[in-house]
Amino acid sequence: MSTLALAFDLGGTELRGALVERSGDVVARVSEATLAGAGSEAVIGQIITLADKLLKEHPQARVVGIGACAPGPLDPKAGIVIGPPTLAGWHNVPMIDILSRQFGLPVRLENDANAAALGEWRFGAGRGAASMVFVTVSTGIGGGVIADGHIYHGRRGLAAEIGHMTITGEGDRCFCGNVGCFEAVASGTALGRQATRLTAPGDGSLLRRLSNNGDVSARHVVEAARTGDATARQLVEAEAKWLGIGFTNLLHLYSPEVIVMGGGLANGFDLLAPGIRATIEGRAMQAYCDVPIVPAELGDRAGLVGAASLILWEGEPGTALAMVQDEETKNGAGGASGSSQSDRA
Amino acid sequence: MSTLALAFDLGGTELRGALVERSGDVVARVSEATLAGAGSEAVIGQIITLADKLLKEHPQARVVGIGACAPGPLDPKAGIVIGPPTLAGWHNVPMIDILSRQFGLPVRLENDANAAALGEWRFGAGRGAASMVFVTVSTGIGGGVIADGHIYHGRRGLAAEIGHMTITGEGDRCFCGNVGCFEAVASGTALGRQATRLTAPGDGSLLRRLSNNGDVSARHVVEAARTGDATARQLVEAEAKWLGIGFTNLLHLYSPEVIVMGGGLANGFDLLAPGIRATIEGRAMQAYCDVPIVPAELGDRAGLVGAASLILWEGEPGTALAMVQDEETKNGAGGASGSSQSDRA
Repeated sequence: MSTLALAFDLGGTELRGALVERSGDVVARVSEATLAGAGSEAVIGQIITLADKLLKEHPQARVVGIGACAPGPLDPKAGIVIGPPTLAGWHNVPMIDILSRQFGLPVRLENDANAAALGEWRFGAGRGAASMVFVTVSTGIGGGVIADGHIYHGRRGLAAEIGHMTITGEGDRCFCGNVGCFEAVASGTALGRQATRLTAPGDGSLLRRLSNNGDVSARHVVEAARTGDATARQLVEAEAKWLGIGFTNLLHLYSPEVIVMGGGLANGFDLLAPGIRATIEGRAMQAYCDVPIVPAELGDRAGLVGAASLILWEGEPGTALAMVQDEETKNGAGGASGSSQSDRA
Repeated sequence: MSTLALAFDLGGTELRGALVERSGDVVARVSEATLAGAGSEAVIGQIITLADKLLKEHPQARVVGIGACAPGPLDPKAGIVIGPPTLAGWHNVPMIDILSRQFGLPVRLENDANAAALGEWRFGAGRGAASMVFVTVSTGIGGGVIADGHIYHGRRGLAAEIGHMTITGEGDRCFCGNVGCFEAVASGTALGRQATRLTAPGDGSLLRRLSNNGDVSARHVVEAARTGDATARQLVEAEAKWLGIGFTNLLHLYSPEVIVMGGGLANGFDLLAPGIRATIEGRAMQAYCDVPIVPAELGDRAGLVGAASLILWEGEPGTALAMVQDEETKNGAGGASGSSQSDRA
């Protein structure tokens, strides 16, 4: 069996673990509901249990390190989970220290959006791009930026807080307290809320039939729009316009070679794409208009393979990796970069 | 005389030339009005004449290369000025080729906002920061970003088009055609326009007295606010709020260690700072609230010394310069990095 990394994607709802090959292929996967209210010790206990399970089921696995991602804010260099709003009782948890002591392996940590960006860049829809913006549109809006061949961290690893970019003065107040955040007007949650407002329980609308007369979600809107439902189509059009305004800002600010859209709403990418494109063509300066906007390719394994690549990545011609190599040397994970040949498919 | 670079800052109004030392000190300066309507050949003729003049007046100067900056869009790697809106008859002008053939010296090109960012980062208000955003607020709003120790270029060098980030749905239409651009609501031009609207010729207001009953400019607003004029104070407060909204976006997106504000409106920085700070504290997520916002230090020589540093920079402990060194090696400007000692003050 080839060289592998243990990868963990710690979410507020689900904790995922995997054994990942250098190629980005996932050899084995496990998951369970995160004990999100039980504090950091309980959740780290879950990680250790899942890791033991994966290692026991694959005794031949040559595991050279652990790549983990968790919700921000998080300091990737110090290896500390600072205090994610979706995990109770986490406050400056030294995740790298804890896991490396437990397993005696090099450990890397990245925030979940950056790890997913890394996964899509190295193995998915962003392959070969020197600069890329990954935007995940689901409950909220998050993102990660590859800037001139490096993941863009900024101070304390806090760059690319895309969801809280102000793009308008209207709409519902964001949970962060502001009006006009990209996330507040364009997330899946915002789309579902609009759909819920435009309909009423028992009104016989397709949207309410799909939701069994409960609150309408973004998924219902996409489903209804696929059948040609007029209200849903109109909602999708408005959603595409907000996404287009936000994406235009990302083009102007980061000048990526490609924008990759992931998250739950990427399931409706084909429906949203014409409206996103029209908005960008109407708003972006000429030089940015031909940048492709594409759907993510890796689904919910983007974070896992991105986290694994923090340990395993050897690079390809055309993609810079100085930062990763520097850190590998520093942290003694040099075994991962010993061979000069990449297994990437 | 120590090693020098010839530096040029080509603006739509003024063409500036200088001899700059490795320390960032300007040894000699010349300037003249840009023949902005006369096409690229005429302007390049001006550059050559100014260069000859500087070299003739300093016959001992050991000039190792030419660093130039010009308005974007511009491709710094290819060395091409693509087509700046403020210079008539410029279309894909191969500036590096032309100047290196003329002088037989290595030539580097950067867009003016990036060059000014580089100047402030290496010799001015951003010294020592790993990540920095430079924002110039005058007729328009422009910027340059230092991302994790590198100037952030993005595709075709087009990153950090800060002025055309949409931050609202209100206000006057931007020259780019959109409503809500940062530049359209927060530039010096926008501030002057608001002041002109709030007053009328002959109304006896301080603003109109300062402007001799003509259109009021941002400079008049700052001047009147300094004397405590109520209308001007109110305008400054509104201006600071817009700047604070835009700067909050820049904090969330780039997570710099410092934001440096330059341009004409930086003359009123002391008046604007409390309102900018209050807006950031009201809008930015907690982890970004303590990032300093400081005025630029180099004034109108930021672009010149930044452009010169493309040729001369040797770096300091703590500031990355891999990109520049790589390009120096590639372009044969290695002489500039021959000594291991920096002269920087």
